[in-house]
Amino acid sequence: DPALKVFSLNSNPSLAQEIAENIGTELGKCTVTNFSDGEIQINIEESVRGCDVYVIQSTCEPVNMHIMELLIMIDALKRASARSINIVMPYYGYARQDRKARSREPITSKLVANLLETAGASRVIMLDLHAPQIQGFFDVPIDHLIGVPILSDYFEEKNFEDVVIVSPDHGGVTRARKMADRLKAPIAIIDKRRPRPNVAEVMNIVGNIEGKTAILIDDIIDTAGTMTLAANALIENGAKEVYACCTHPVLSGPAIERIDNSMIKELVVTNTIPLKDEKMIDKVSVLSVGQLISEAITRVHERKSISILFD
Amino acid sequence: DPALKVFSLNSNPSLAQEIAENIGTELGKCTVTNFSDGEIQINIEESVRGCDVYVIQSTCEPVNMHIMELLIMIDALKRASARSINIVMPYYGYARQDRKARSREPITSKLVANLLETAGASRVIMLDLHAPQIQGFFDVPIDHLIGVPILSDYFEEKNFEDVVIVSPDHGGVTRARKMADRLKAPIAIIDKRRPRPNVAEVMNIVGNIEGKTAILIDDIIDTAGTMTLAANALIENGAKEVYACCTHPVLSGPAIERIDNSMIKELVVTNTIPLKDEKMIDKVSVLSVGQLISEAITRVHERKSISILFD
Ligand SMILES: Nc1ncnc2c1ncn2[C@@H]1O[C@H](COP(=O)(O)O)[C@@H](O)[C@H]1O
Ligand SMILES: Nc1ncnc2c1ncn2[C@@H]1O[C@H](COP(=O)(O)O)[C@@H](O)[C@H]1O
Repeated sequence: DPALKVFSLNSNPSLAQEIAENIGTELGKCTVTNFSDGEIQINIEESVRGCDVYVIQSTCEPVNMHIMELLIMIDALKRASARSINIVMPYYGYARQDRKARSREPITSKLVANLLETAGASRVIMLDLHAPQIQGFFDVPIDHLIGVPILSDYFEEKNFEDVVIVSPDHGGVTRARKMADRLKAPIAIIDKRRPRPNVAEVMNIVGNIEGKTAILIDDIIDTAGTMTLAANALIENGAKEVYACCTHPVLSGPAIERIDNSMIKELVVTNTIPLKDEKMIDKVSVLSVGQLISEAITRVHERKSISILFD
Repeated sequence: DPALKVFSLNSNPSLAQEIAENIGTELGKCTVTNFSDGEIQINIEESVRGCDVYVIQSTCEPVNMHIMELLIMIDALKRASARSINIVMPYYGYARQDRKARSREPITSKLVANLLETAGASRVIMLDLHAPQIQGFFDVPIDHLIGVPILSDYFEEKNFEDVVIVSPDHGGVTRARKMADRLKAPIAIIDKRRPRPNVAEVMNIVGNIEGKTAILIDDIIDTAGTMTLAANALIENGAKEVYACCTHPVLSGPAIERIDNSMIKELVVTNTIPLKDEKMIDKVSVLSVGQLISEAITRVHERKSISILFD
């Protein structure tokens, strides 16, 4: 069998390290630095000829640099005669720009898919895409993993008495349903609407939350506006306590301050995006997707179905 | 005839403004900003349906952001039904990564060409490519302009007595020859070589420079190591005074300090890359490529040959 090699770029080295250890290999030798003028310089310091290479890169902030690092690495691997170039993107940046919501908008999510293929990606492994339709933006095989089992297992161990899983908006109901199935709990939905133009939004709650422990779930928490407003609305409407969770902790701008000042008791995230040190506040717990991704890599490499990872 | 529209991205707005004014139009309305998490957000605020669009963007520092801005803009224009998307890149970043100089290096210059075509570029107008071979990295039409006439005209007005045009290395001799033809001057070459491994390089000068005004010419001045060493070697070897010029003032890292401390009397550059304020030192003169580029755009749009611009 051709050798499997795992390389890390600069976005998430500790997750990459964990993945390599789980697989029982060492990270491939490679330096990714900048020339004096800011251009990316990549030196792959071991042969990859005929190898199945897995490159770990989350396209989180600084997103444009991380995308270019990835594209240049793919180019270098291709020219170095790698047999296959498998891209592992725990977090897929620009996922929210996945349609023309207004005239003359780009569809950057599709553009990035095209760029990865143009550079020479053979396959992409991703986790909790903002919209599952993004899989169709690629013509190469995609393996789409989900974080719900990891988040659900964490909450299962807490043995809450009376739980309800809450989607913070209409778009997330399917995800909430998946977690509810695992925890054998009912769901509720925050049904935001604006009664008239220029009137504040009303946070209406569909479903019974009174006296219950509410777990809000989303794929991405970015500025945390939606999540913290939802949490406060749940408490105001009689929930006993509110937990929040997501796969991808983007946590930009006012996110941490908002979470700190909100009714959220604990925020549970995964390490698809590394938290900056100053963001490591008491309220946040981080679960690792390392085991999930390393199993996926091993199964893909051994040509086994990965559907088992969803059960 | 379909309408011509000129859009500017964020790398070089003052050059774009000058180009639009020369053409007799206004810059297209468009905002290019960042979401809270750093992803690029582009809003094109006027119709481009059926138009021939020219987008001005130098991929100078921050190069990765400027490349992504350009790709996303092309994607948006394509989806907004522009008739043609003509990219004007006064400075083409990553041009020096144009070959595998060592094993397993990327060829980022070719990668960027592929990315531009994948996004949807119809044509690219460029200026003084680091290697003219980069034209062949594209399958769409390229118009390749040169800065030598602009630089030469500036020195012509100085009416030097006895001039020699000097190439700071072997790679730049063709460029030095072009300037020498225009100024009716001889050329000289700095012939760096390392006599034995681990022995300092020797700056040997091929050609007669004694008592002459030497003009060093290069395409890019980045950290200015080559240029300042060359200038000092020329003075040491009897040149009367040394001027230096280039098309693309990258001027990264120690460049300004080195130039300040060197024997270079005046550094003449163009505005393909805007100088940062603190870089605007006394020694530097900036010439504009705005007239050259706007003539090229007008001629391309009117389907006229641009070869006249080289005479
Ligand atoms: N990085 C981003 N940060 C915030 N909003 C974004 C970002 N990228 C895209 N959007 C916008 O988010 C909306 C899509 O989000 P959603 O409705 O949750 O799928 C669109 O209107 C996009 O313009
Ligand atoms: N941005 C950059 N800054 C400095 N050196 C570079 C840069 N990009 C590529 N190079 C290196 O410059 C060399 C090519 O420059 P040249 O010999 O002038 O064509 C190659 O060895 C490249 O690895």
